[in-house]
Amino acid sequence: MTVDIQPDRIMRELAELATFSNASLPAVTRVVFSAQDLAARAWFKRLCVERALTVREDSVGNTFARWAGADPDLPAVATGSHMDAIPNAGRFDGTVGVLGGLEAIRTLRSNGFQPWRSIELILFTSEEPTRFGVGCVGSRLLSGSLSAKVADQMKDEDGGTLAEIRERAGFRGDLESVRLNPDFYSGFVELHIEQGPILEREQINIGVVSHIAAPAALRIEIEGEGGHAGAVLMPQRRDAFSAAAELALAIESAARRTGSIDTVATTGTCNVFPAAINSIPSKVQLGVDVRDVDLERRDSILHTVDKAAKRISADRHVDISINVITADAPAVSDERICTTIRCACQELGLTYRNMVSRAYHDCLFMSRICPASMIFIPCRNGVSHRPDEYASEEDIVNGVRVLARTLAQLAQ
Amino acid sequence: MTVDIQPDRIMRELAELATFSNASLPAVTRVVFSAQDLAARAWFKRLCVERALTVREDSVGNTFARWAGADPDLPAVATGSHMDAIPNAGRFDGTVGVLGGLEAIRTLRSNGFQPWRSIELILFTSEEPTRFGVGCVGSRLLSGSLSAKVADQMKDEDGGTLAEIRERAGFRGDLESVRLNPDFYSGFVELHIEQGPILEREQINIGVVSHIAAPAALRIEIEGEGGHAGAVLMPQRRDAFSAAAELALAIESAARRTGSIDTVATTGTCNVFPAAINSIPSKVQLGVDVRDVDLERRDSILHTVDKAAKRISADRHVDISINVITADAPAVSDERICTTIRCACQELGLTYRNMVSRAYHDCLFMSRICPASMIFIPCRNGVSHRPDEYASEEDIVNGVRVLARTLAQLAQ
Repeated sequence: MTVDIQPDRIMRELAELATFSNASLPAVTRVVFSAQDLAARAWFKRLCVERALTVREDSVGNTFARWAGADPDLPAVATGSHMDAIPNAGRFDGTVGVLGGLEAIRTLRSNGFQPWRSIELILFTSEEPTRFGVGCVGSRLLSGSLSAKVADQMKDEDGGTLAEIRERAGFRGDLESVRLNPDFYSGFVELHIEQGPILEREQINIGVVSHIAAPAALRIEIEGEGGHAGAVLMPQRRDAFSAAAELALAIESAARRTGSIDTVATTGTCNVFPAAINSIPSKVQLGVDVRDVDLERRDSILHTVDKAAKRISADRHVDISINVITADAPAVSDERICTTIRCACQELGLTYRNMVSRAYHDCLFMSRICPASMIFIPCRNGVSHRPDEYASEEDIVNGVRVLARTLAQLAQ
Repeated sequence: MTVDIQPDRIMRELAELATFSNASLPAVTRVVFSAQDLAARAWFKRLCVERALTVREDSVGNTFARWAGADPDLPAVATGSHMDAIPNAGRFDGTVGVLGGLEAIRTLRSNGFQPWRSIELILFTSEEPTRFGVGCVGSRLLSGSLSAKVADQMKDEDGGTLAEIRERAGFRGDLESVRLNPDFYSGFVELHIEQGPILEREQINIGVVSHIAAPAALRIEIEGEGGHAGAVLMPQRRDAFSAAAELALAIESAARRTGSIDTVATTGTCNVFPAAINSIPSKVQLGVDVRDVDLERRDSILHTVDKAAKRISADRHVDISINVITADAPAVSDERICTTIRCACQELGLTYRNMVSRAYHDCLFMSRICPASMIFIPCRNGVSHRPDEYASEEDIVNGVRVLARTLAQLAQ
């Protein structure tokens, strides 16, 4: 089977998708259910319909474009990723898996391939935690990893609930209905940029993902006492920002001390109240992300955070509350699908290696309801979530070709 | 001379002024040139005009309400303060000096007093640095302590310049014209809550301010490198927030180590970019406030900040730029005016003590163009810049009575 990609088409579409953004190019900001996100979804659905795919949406906005197989009653093969982008991000994270999946389907079709099983392209809702503090909202719900009730009550920064916001975006109905039966898909493959430096450094075309690292997200709130920056003397202070600074450094240091390169911890957000240069911060909220491929080691960091918070709370007379938003277990890929990907690489003459995904992906949750794996392609300098995030046309095309062959194999 | 204050009138007006706010009571937020600030100004001008005071405004919005003296050509005696309030502040900071000044004038008038010199009540623009990062914008310009050109180019968070914003607020004309001749006023007295715990603790009615502490404001920008919180390993990171946390703790520690209780340093604002829980911060902006009654000791902290920034910059491979927004010299009050205040206290049977102002005030800049001092009244728990900021009716009335007698004495 030949797999002839039209490189200019997918690159043009990636460029076009990048214009649905609240940031100036090359930066991309596309927060879930923002006007830009909704416009991008409409554009994407048009592309799918043009190729005669049957589009359906569930009540959280997960979007499914189906190419009916010869036996449409068999569990389908799925691929897909996300299009939402954190503030000031790039144009390749997630989108390569969505538009690449579409390109794979178009290519298989125009090459005359007829699948036995149906093939579905999934656009997942809110893979990024930007708006609701929880990542992979769509795939969590699909896989039953997040309760419908809890999900609908999640709030964004402005206090809007997911229930209100999805309804305003046009996605109505009970969230319970999003959950899929475990036999709905026979397999899932996600194409994604590596978001790390390994493939580029080793000059390898394709990464076959064997494990996805286990992420935990914490929301930490520190309550001290405000006051005038001139008038309250240093020994009388209960400065919430100083306490937050100390805690952030303790978290960083704990991640550095595990002895494993696989442990990472990040304080990515910090909101200070009242946020006036001449006011002692009375309250600080931190957003902390901790990951590891080893669940026990990851959880040991969470334990250290607790201990450090207790110490700082006692030293500085502040209240610290730690809310564990997510603490997911790592995923192990399906060996049969990994082998299918490796075979596709070999047949296409591409180099490949097994690797761990340090970023989490919708595949983490899809792997809970069906056999799953991921195809990684190199990205420049290992950079992502930044405007200079970049994957070359050649690498994207390689990824799509491997994906197309893998889907064809799994759908036969 | 009797000084009969109408306590319910000034308390009612303070309560009414608190409703011009973008926060829910008891919190008050009234940022300069916001719709609420402009509405409060209009309300204040009506109060002045009702009492037959002649109101004029300069091109930065400083508002002057004049009670013409028997010899209107003599330099006037001035009093006044500010009405802008930082986010989530209280209702007494500044406002007691503005409405108290008005009450003092009304009382002198209704007591049949006729001043020889004119008495002017000044409402200063933007004493709080909330919007433009610089405090006392109005009094700096009045005293020639801030260049008109620099002032007009100051920007708020949304990128609007003072020039644009004051024009939209209706204050047109060259800022050069704001500056007053040094012989315009014969004296200035500002009534204010202490914003510290001393008067309350010592059960003293009135503070006579001998010095105003020297504030410095820094804007610090830290540039590191962003990236995916899962994918970039710890040794490869150039995390701007970790660097900021370390710097903030170094600043706090420097202020604690001077050996003097008079040194204070505060990191009051912290903006993180891109501010996503799963993104390594690429840039952080800190707003830092350093104060002391001793200029040399205050500047030694600034020196320590520089040194710490250099060390952290080298250790963490981040760029740190420190922008000194203000670094004002302390003010020494005029002894003749202080004595006039003390005499007023004695005549009214009120206890008083000399004290240092640890907060800065418009008086700091007025003291550069005329003899000046301040009258402090107790505030509960020494708290200000918070919703629970509180001064009792009795203390406010005492302050107004002392102010009225002082103004009468200076205007005779």
